[in-house]
Amino acid sequence: MASPLPVSPPAVHVALSEGRSYAVHFEPLATAPMHLREAGLSGPLALVVTDETVGPLHLGALADALRADGWTVEATAVPAGEGSKSLDQLSALHDWALGLGIDRQTPLLALGGGVVGDLAGFAAATLLRGIPLVHLPTTTISQVDSAIGGKTGINHATGKNLVGAFHQPRLVLADPATLDTLDERAFRSGLAEAVKHALISDPALADRLDREWDTLVARQPDVLAPLLRDAAAVKARVIEADEREAGERAFLNFGHTFGHALEKEAGYGTLTHGEAVALGMRAALHLSESLRLGQVAEALGPFAEADRLVARLDPPAPTLAIDALMAATEADKKRTAAGVRYVVLDAVGRPRLAADVDDALLRAAWRYALSA
Amino acid sequence: MASPLPVSPPAVHVALSEGRSYAVHFEPLATAPMHLREAGLSGPLALVVTDETVGPLHLGALADALRADGWTVEATAVPAGEGSKSLDQLSALHDWALGLGIDRQTPLLALGGGVVGDLAGFAAATLLRGIPLVHLPTTTISQVDSAIGGKTGINHATGKNLVGAFHQPRLVLADPATLDTLDERAFRSGLAEAVKHALISDPALADRLDREWDTLVARQPDVLAPLLRDAAAVKARVIEADEREAGERAFLNFGHTFGHALEKEAGYGTLTHGEAVALGMRAALHLSESLRLGQVAEALGPFAEADRLVARLDPPAPTLAIDALMAATEADKKRTAAGVRYVVLDAVGRPRLAADVDDALLRAAWRYALSA
Ligand SMILES: NC(=O)c1ccc[n+]([C@@H]2O[C@H](COP(=O)([O-])OP(=O)(O)OC[C@H]3O[C@@H](n4cnc5c(N)ncnc54)[C@H](O)[C@@H]3O)[C@@H](O)[C@H]2O)c1
Ligand SMILES: NC(=O)c1ccc[n+]([C@@H]2O[C@H](COP(=O)([O-])OP(=O)(O)OC[C@H]3O[C@@H](n4cnc5c(N)ncnc54)[C@H](O)[C@@H]3O)[C@@H](O)[C@H]2O)c1
Repeated sequence: MASPLPVSPPAVHVALSEGRSYAVHFEPLATAPMHLREAGLSGPLALVVTDETVGPLHLGALADALRADGWTVEATAVPAGEGSKSLDQLSALHDWALGLGIDRQTPLLALGGGVVGDLAGFAAATLLRGIPLVHLPTTTISQVDSAIGGKTGINHATGKNLVGAFHQPRLVLADPATLDTLDERAFRSGLAEAVKHALISDPALADRLDREWDTLVARQPDVLAPLLRDAAAVKARVIEADEREAGERAFLNFGHTFGHALEKEAGYGTLTHGEAVALGMRAALHLSESLRLGQVAEALGPFAEADRLVARLDPPAPTLAIDALMAATEADKKRTAAGVRYVVLDAVGRPRLAADVDDALLRAAWRYALSA
Repeated sequence: MASPLPVSPPAVHVALSEGRSYAVHFEPLATAPMHLREAGLSGPLALVVTDETVGPLHLGALADALRADGWTVEATAVPAGEGSKSLDQLSALHDWALGLGIDRQTPLLALGGGVVGDLAGFAAATLLRGIPLVHLPTTTISQVDSAIGGKTGINHATGKNLVGAFHQPRLVLADPATLDTLDERAFRSGLAEAVKHALISDPALADRLDREWDTLVARQPDVLAPLLRDAAAVKARVIEADEREAGERAFLNFGHTFGHALEKEAGYGTLTHGEAVALGMRAALHLSESLRLGQVAEALGPFAEADRLVARLDPPAPTLAIDALMAATEADKKRTAAGVRYVVLDAVGRPRLAADVDDALLRAAWRYALSA
């Protein structure tokens, strides 16, 4: 299962302010000891947080490699699923870690998908005002997206991800072989973010994703690893330009304003995040063409190829009322003083923010996405 | 009570990495609207967190000034005292703030002592991954110390301040007139940190504190404000050199390694933090002289004047066993891999870290502090 790749793609390097930086490796979990050392992290104690699904599958290989290298490994598993991004679980991790006599050098390793990464990352951010964090992402979305960028946090009764902190990892080690055990829907859902990264900034990657789609979804490691790596590199470049989300980082929301409304209206948990983002990207591509033309587009014009790539993600078409979706995006508005701003493309790889978008264009975009 | 000072001392400016900076003003609370504007903060919504003692005394003047300037003020008060630095209170602040429809620009103003500053600061650090924080410190210790530097946090069953985050304020406005209502013991306790700042880096300030002590403790505003301001400036300079506590910031622990052991052995709440630090500084001064001589010191030599200044703080002399105090500092050791390191002075204004200190010198330092 965790057999090393014949050849690993080169690491992605994320350069932050004040000379801080970290590497994102696409390599087997068994290489963790070596990369910890390179990142300047030392033990003997290492904390590992995982979830009850991932732990039984992948913790063994990691813990064996660490112990063989002299680490003392303490591991804990939270229940799998979004419900673990809670203050209760955070508090339980605080109790657990502080009970182990950690100091400010003790690394915390988050082994799992975005839920484990966000929760354990927030614990690392807040223990002793910040201990070193290592992401070991095991889902497609976490390998190309959530493990990079330093956003950590939990959910709140009033909304997702409303409590949290920025805490950059010291190291990301994404083992593409761990994706083997992921179910089909979760695997594909995460690819939506890879497609998004290609569309907002790497047309060549979009072409490769399109061309190699079949071997990609067959999870052939030598095809998977370099594609995921390049998708992760897009996120890294955006983060470098905008570490704390003041501007450019907004482009990562391509498809997400529409997508959030879809997730909400379909009822959370009905669509996967990736499915909602895929549908959202179709709406955003349609809107891009309408804005290019200055009127409601009849067809996708120069965005047709991009739309075909998105369609490969094969999102289900939910039956939802456009009025309700329009209202849901409006409600999102309250969070930003500037009103709803949509990420659209001038061309593949050239995103921009569009404000004050005409309702007629939005409705047409929704219609396209829901019927396409 | 909150009558403006005839002349306010110049602001202290704290310059951080990446061009961030903030000002520390020693001026009346009524100047808050002006300073918020200068700091680039805008409303209409402002959150104010205070405690149940400070609120009735000082919230009115602040809220009136803000409302007169067009702000919508929402305020909440936590119970006074250390017990409020808890996950429960943090969670209550999250619920309260998120229920008010805040966005990432909404400023949170912490009106109170170090407890309110640490708790509300941690809430600001974690709401929407960080909203603007304004400290309005109302105790001596918070005006010269805790409001500056970005440490925020809460306590944990296993120890104080073990859960938290670094979150620098956007503005600090310390109104020396608010200290009028502070009880004598709390007022003096905070002066210990002012004395500490003078001893580790500003010999001229140490002289002035000594000379003006009587008018200072009579809380005469025109004497108080510039002295507090200069003590705050010492903290600011240290923070600038070491924003996230990698090195230099350790000098702020002058008197604190001894002090923590005293607080613990006396039983938390018996000595004020300032009283413990005052006794700790006496021990640290004795140790400084012993290390200078290379043997147990009989008298304080060049540190006699500094010790006289510390003695003005008039800490009570508790009856505690030196063996227990020695053990308590050893226990602290677990938190740092490097062992116990004591901040000592080569001269007033010239601190350094001493490691591997001989037990005989430590015992003599304790004896001096407890009998002096
Ligand atoms: N921090 C960020 O920047 C960021 C970005 C995007 C998404 N997110 C967050 O990420 C979360 C979604 O990520 P996710 O889909 O990875 O969620 P997840 O962690 O819940 O993983 C999905 C499911 O797959 C299981 N799983 C994980 N790895 C597996 C493996 N290798 N084999 C078998 N099963 C496995 C998990 O146990 C879980 O049941 C959301 O909470 C979202 O808010 C965060
Ligand atoms: N963040 C940091 O860098 C830092 C540094 C030093 C201390 N601290 C923390 O600060 C706390 C101690 O600070 P503190 O002594 O200010 O605590 P505090 O906030 O509990 O204030 C002490 C008491 O004085 C009352 N009070 C405050 N202002 C008053 C006023 N103007 N008039 C009348 N009563 C008033 C409070 O209600 C409280 O009962 C501790 O929790 C400590 O850990 C933090």
